[in-house]
Amino acid sequence: MSVKVLTVKEDVLGANAENARANQELVDKHHILMINIMSSPGAGKTSLIPQTIKRFKENIRIAVIEGDIASTIDADKVSNLGISAVQINTGGACHLDANMIRKGLENLALEKTDLIIIENVGNLICTAEFALGAHEKVMLLSVPEGDDKPHKYPLMFTEADVVLVNKTDVMPYFDFNLTAFTKAVRGLNPTAQIFPISAKTGAGLEAWFSWLEAQLKEKAGTA
Amino acid sequence: MSVKVLTVKEDVLGANAENARANQELVDKHHILMINIMSSPGAGKTSLIPQTIKRFKENIRIAVIEGDIASTIDADKVSNLGISAVQINTGGACHLDANMIRKGLENLALEKTDLIIIENVGNLICTAEFALGAHEKVMLLSVPEGDDKPHKYPLMFTEADVVLVNKTDVMPYFDFNLTAFTKAVRGLNPTAQIFPISAKTGAGLEAWFSWLEAQLKEKAGTA
Repeated sequence: MSVKVLTVKEDVLGANAENARANQELVDKHHILMINIMSSPGAGKTSLIPQTIKRFKENIRIAVIEGDIASTIDADKVSNLGISAVQINTGGACHLDANMIRKGLENLALEKTDLIIIENVGNLICTAEFALGAHEKVMLLSVPEGDDKPHKYPLMFTEADVVLVNKTDVMPYFDFNLTAFTKAVRGLNPTAQIFPISAKTGAGLEAWFSWLEAQLKEKAGTA
Repeated sequence: MSVKVLTVKEDVLGANAENARANQELVDKHHILMINIMSSPGAGKTSLIPQTIKRFKENIRIAVIEGDIASTIDADKVSNLGISAVQINTGGACHLDANMIRKGLENLALEKTDLIIIENVGNLICTAEFALGAHEKVMLLSVPEGDDKPHKYPLMFTEADVVLVNKTDVMPYFDFNLTAFTKAVRGLNPTAQIFPISAKTGAGLEAWFSWLEAQLKEKAGTA
């Protein structure tokens, strides 16, 4: 059975990669930066995104595509900030795919958008496999999850452009070795940016904002 | 593309269910209780399992099947406790399936086993979809993940026979409403047992042990 699954998966991944390229071409045409935020359930994506929106929304036009198995909790939170949000309920699927993002893009006013933030389904495995067409892959690991996660979920850490280590405010209550974690990430991915943050207290967020601002400037430079 | 994936999935799930039934028949023949422990990455499965082994290993014969994308960290931990452990590396797949468990069972001395603990891959979505043949499905949610998870990942909470709320020792540092959480779980699954625990400090573990002991007695009664 595993061989059968793999064959199907390759077909699916090939078609998905093609759709992802089309998504990126579409957003590039509008000089939009698109980022794909991934993490385990409860790592803090839904706290990070409003913080990021608040920081940038006066200067740039932001839209959010929310991916969830079920519910519109996250889209509601974003929408309350006055931001365009599209909720995609995957109906059981454990990740967003490029086709779902295309449908999301069709529901956004792309000509009036500078930044699209995709909040992927809470999953450290399948989300890493499916390209969406985003320019940057951002993964969020929270301190309570433990510093051994790069060994257990290597693909995610290999694929990420940025690794945010969230919930540093509770670092004293957990055995999380940031040095060992950084070394493990570097072993898989020498170029990933690693930023320790607390989306709750705001600690460390400036480094993340600066990085995002640099990407936005680079993208605007192509306009 | 989504229709294609769904069709394949149904075929895969159908074949899997059949294999799961065969697994259960096999362990039933040996009067073994088999439990499937599922959670997000870092929720604490790998702390709960050694605690459970230490509590029961003097009286019953335990074996563990460890599922991971990569690495043998967990199997090594269990093996150090003098317990038979089989490591299944899924090679990227986001969950164990019944076929993998069959291979695991073939590598255990079933005639000398009373309890098999399966540690599934860290994933709150796909693991819930694939029956393994276990008698009981145990899911572990950790306090830092948040109390809204039943809304976002309903299948897991619907499928679970037991919901362990782990890391209660850090409850003071997180906004986790146990009453709201319990109500949400009950809405999906009126019969699930819910036990707040701390695998780290041992708090609340007696209730979990008592429940497991009752299941073991019931299974031994069939011998």
